Amino acid sequence: MKPDGGSLIGFGSSGLGGALFNAFDPARDAFLEPSFQSGTVEDVERALQLAAAAAPVWAQLPGAQRNKFLSMVADNLEAKAADLVARAMQETALPEARLKGEVARTAGQLRLYGEAAERGDWLDARIETALPGRQPLPKPDHRSMLRPLGPVVVFGSSNFPFAYSVAGGDTASAIAAGCPVIVKAHPAHPGTSELVGRLILHAVRDCGLPEGTFSLLFDAGFKIGQALVKHPLVKAVGFTGSLKGGRTLADLAAARPVPIPVYAEMGSINPLFILPGALAERSAALVDGLHASANVGIGQFCTNPGLIVLQRSAPAEQFIKNLAAKLSATPEGTMLTAGIHKNFVSHTADRAHQPGVKVIVRGKIASACGAAPVWFETDALDFLSNHALSEEIFGPSSLVVWCQDRAEMLAVAHDLAGNLTATLHAGATEAKEQGDLVAILAAKAGRVILNSYPTGLEVSPAIVHGGPYPATSDGGRSTSVGTRALNRWARLVCYQSFSDDLLPPELQNANPLGLLRLVNGQWTDKLVS
Amino acid sequence: MKPDGGSLIGFGSSGLGGALFNAFDPARDAFLEPSFQSGTVEDVERALQLAAAAAPVWAQLPGAQRNKFLSMVADNLEAKAADLVARAMQETALPEARLKGEVARTAGQLRLYGEAAERGDWLDARIETALPGRQPLPKPDHRSMLRPLGPVVVFGSSNFPFAYSVAGGDTASAIAAGCPVIVKAHPAHPGTSELVGRLILHAVRDCGLPEGTFSLLFDAGFKIGQALVKHPLVKAVGFTGSLKGGRTLADLAAARPVPIPVYAEMGSINPLFILPGALAERSAALVDGLHASANVGIGQFCTNPGLIVLQRSAPAEQFIKNLAAKLSATPEGTMLTAGIHKNFVSHTADRAHQPGVKVIVRGKIASACGAAPVWFETDALDFLSNHALSEEIFGPSSLVVWCQDRAEMLAVAHDLAGNLTATLHAGATEAKEQGDLVAILAAKAGRVILNSYPTGLEVSPAIVHGGPYPATSDGGRSTSVGTRALNRWARLVCYQSFSDDLLPPELQNANPLGLLRLVNGQWTDKLVS
Repeated sequence: MKPDGGSLIGFGSSGLGGALFNAFDPARDAFLEPSFQSGTVEDVERALQLAAAAAPVWAQLPGAQRNKFLSMVADNLEAKAADLVARAMQETALPEARLKGEVARTAGQLRLYGEAAERGDWLDARIETALPGRQPLPKPDHRSMLRPLGPVVVFGSSNFPFAYSVAGGDTASAIAAGCPVIVKAHPAHPGTSELVGRLILHAVRDCGLPEGTFSLLFDAGFKIGQALVKHPLVKAVGFTGSLKGGRTLADLAAARPVPIPVYAEMGSINPLFILPGALAERSAALVDGLHASANVGIGQFCTNPGLIVLQRSAPAEQFIKNLAAKLSATPEGTMLTAGIHKNFVSHTADRAHQPGVKVIVRGKIASACGAAPVWFETDALDFLSNHALSEEIFGPSSLVVWCQDRAEMLAVAHDLAGNLTATLHAGATEAKEQGDLVAILAAKAGRVILNSYPTGLEVSPAIVHGGPYPATSDGGRSTSVGTRALNRWARLVCYQSFSDDLLPPELQNANPLGLLRLVNGQWTDKLVS
Repeated sequence: MKPDGGSLIGFGSSGLGGALFNAFDPARDAFLEPSFQSGTVEDVERALQLAAAAAPVWAQLPGAQRNKFLSMVADNLEAKAADLVARAMQETALPEARLKGEVARTAGQLRLYGEAAERGDWLDARIETALPGRQPLPKPDHRSMLRPLGPVVVFGSSNFPFAYSVAGGDTASAIAAGCPVIVKAHPAHPGTSELVGRLILHAVRDCGLPEGTFSLLFDAGFKIGQALVKHPLVKAVGFTGSLKGGRTLADLAAARPVPIPVYAEMGSINPLFILPGALAERSAALVDGLHASANVGIGQFCTNPGLIVLQRSAPAEQFIKNLAAKLSATPEGTMLTAGIHKNFVSHTADRAHQPGVKVIVRGKIASACGAAPVWFETDALDFLSNHALSEEIFGPSSLVVWCQDRAEMLAVAHDLAGNLTATLHAGATEAKEQGDLVAILAAKAGRVILNSYPTGLEVSPAIVHGGPYPATSDGGRSTSVGTRALNRWARLVCYQSFSDDLLPPELQNANPLGLLRLVNGQWTDKLVS
């Protein structure tokens, strides 16, 4: 299975001749074959017409059939994992084991969200039965649930070519919710994107679903993405990437004649606070754990711990000295793209010249897109007075912030902008006194972690991958990972005084799907008599 | 209890001298005493500092105490209902019985949302327990739930001086969710607003809550509202009013350095489709029912049926003739404000000159702010070709759209923008064949009604008062009425690998609040062992 370079517009392809571009192998510092053709505005129009035609079909499609489709996509990915991983290795320089694991996670996500669609409890079905004799006014029958929004546009990320890309979490959750999807492929891994897109379309065919269920468009630049977000038939957008990119799309969507939601997962510095008791208990384990978390995927994780906050003390200085030694010995790795590498070099160079900032580790680099840890330190007062130090540097770079005392540590916590995660390491005896710090961190992040590390994300019903702006564009009201991710692609509809046969099955008296429903104020899976 | 004209900033008042304005009695065509003082930017700053100080207290306040507070506000409203209704009658010209009923509904809402806060099931608490031995990686413990956003700004509506105003649904749901509230009073009923605001603050004192729990600011113009929406300490906005007003605030909020959600409930024409079988069965009842729904509150309901869609036939023409006769005999009523009256006059005058539009009823008016039904008719093709005919006219005016056949009726349905409601009247035998029309209407409205009327809103766990844009600014993903309204003011937070004593009670093993929680994929109110 090899890519051939064309957009996938339903079962058709683009023949209209947008600009050509090639994928790039950052490890070999060379372009890859074949060339990919950017989409055109005509392609956008065709993809949206197909998606709009598919939307009502999907809106009526039972959860069990959504599950069957997503499960088939998962099977297809696993069956072709070797081809997918081989291409992705070239396009991303990520190691084989990581990419194999990512395919497995992506397949697992597809199945989990499919099962959620079939189970249907995410629909929040509610029933209030009529009381015709109520005084002073009769009470009508009301039944309500979530219904799919319609065509969704997904922007694949650069750093997870499977899990946050063409068949990744946004696509899987939108389809599970009953929405057709159009993916704008990330230009860093177009070949991987095309292969995955074809596997999705195989499942569309095999399940007998409308071809507008899925399309994949390429673009070397920004024109197609912007045209998609502005198109009147698009009802919502999912995005994983930079703050600048996400905010641009959110602003475009908010300025439309009919605004639409943009669920953008953007920047995060993922602060990690280390208290004295944690260092006293397990300094060496913290060196190993933090080193591993900060360097997994060459630091190119959205949950990378980018800010380390400590109180100054002899053990803390020794801890950072030991960590710096381990970081200095870290072999260089190849970054995802030449652009990411260039930004990493320039942003770390800028940070080295910020007032009060010292370089504590500067890894040596031999190859074109190589990166090794570059760490900085500063004092809390310098950090608090310089907004530039709160900006994310994507890659293996973190900033150590030294606090004089607990008050300064709390001030740093208070000063944080929104983050995907915030982590606290505390000793056994001091942990229970951290209520104040935990409350601050819970107000700043979508996930607060105790005595562990932010990287590595369990895809489950309880996970939250979101957070206040700028971590996400919706202020952390939703999550892009876990079964709650389906809720982003739906709106509430209430049926008043309906006869049973005109209601969706989820709201019918007999409860044919066996849903847990809120019936007259009580959660129950019983039928309504 | 009489108003004295000052903003309520926590337990203090404004002494800074913004522009003065007076309430207006539309029935007597005269200004009312006292003068009210517009807030200043200093007032905004002080109110927000107080609210920000109260926010962490509210975030930790148990649901039972939120319930106690809201219940006390409800008691205070009921105890002073006579004073409130007397002032509101002067400021709105609404009749006593309606206003008494609205106070009762407002008190009921406060109690319902308070009970929801105490019960806590809206929090969507979820727990996935750890599997330390899982291969290839251990599974960490994850526990997540909704947490309050922080200070919320509420804009009171003109047409419901109690239920959608100072202590209305937005305020009640935001406080139930754990958020301090700052209300920008609607300048049409400042006296009613002040009285209600004082009753809220009495409850704040009596419950020993921080004064930043609630503030009320006046403004004759737009400066204070805009300053509130742009203030960095504001985390979300609720609004009920015009499309122009809501969109302006949503645009301001989206353009902030840190965007915040605006839940604006805006315009709606509430289409009502009448099928031949319904006319054959109950033409006279439809005349009475539609007449009542279209004229309740002088047509000044956001759910007013503004678009009546029928297939042309002799019985349909007779139906409209009978309805027109009844509409013509409707006595005039006084509109809420001189501005609303002026818009009603100019918008109905404009509509009369639209191509293909005929006036079928034009009520006679004797008093300054008086209005009586002004109804129009047009053909489907004229309607479909003229966007102006889809705009809401606030007041007792509706447009009858004549379709040649069912295909035209479906075309009109397809062409609709977002609405709060859509209504279908069908005969007993034809009802079950309306799946296609119901599917279209469910894609266009937040509430679809069969054989009833859109006005009159049951405040319950199952109700949806929302809808696609322009009915609401968030595309109908939320509701401003019913217990789901609490969800608008919250975001998701996940606690990873936490010890029980550091978790909020809602997520602790022992389940001290007896919540229904999703534990390892099963909804249960049992404890976690």
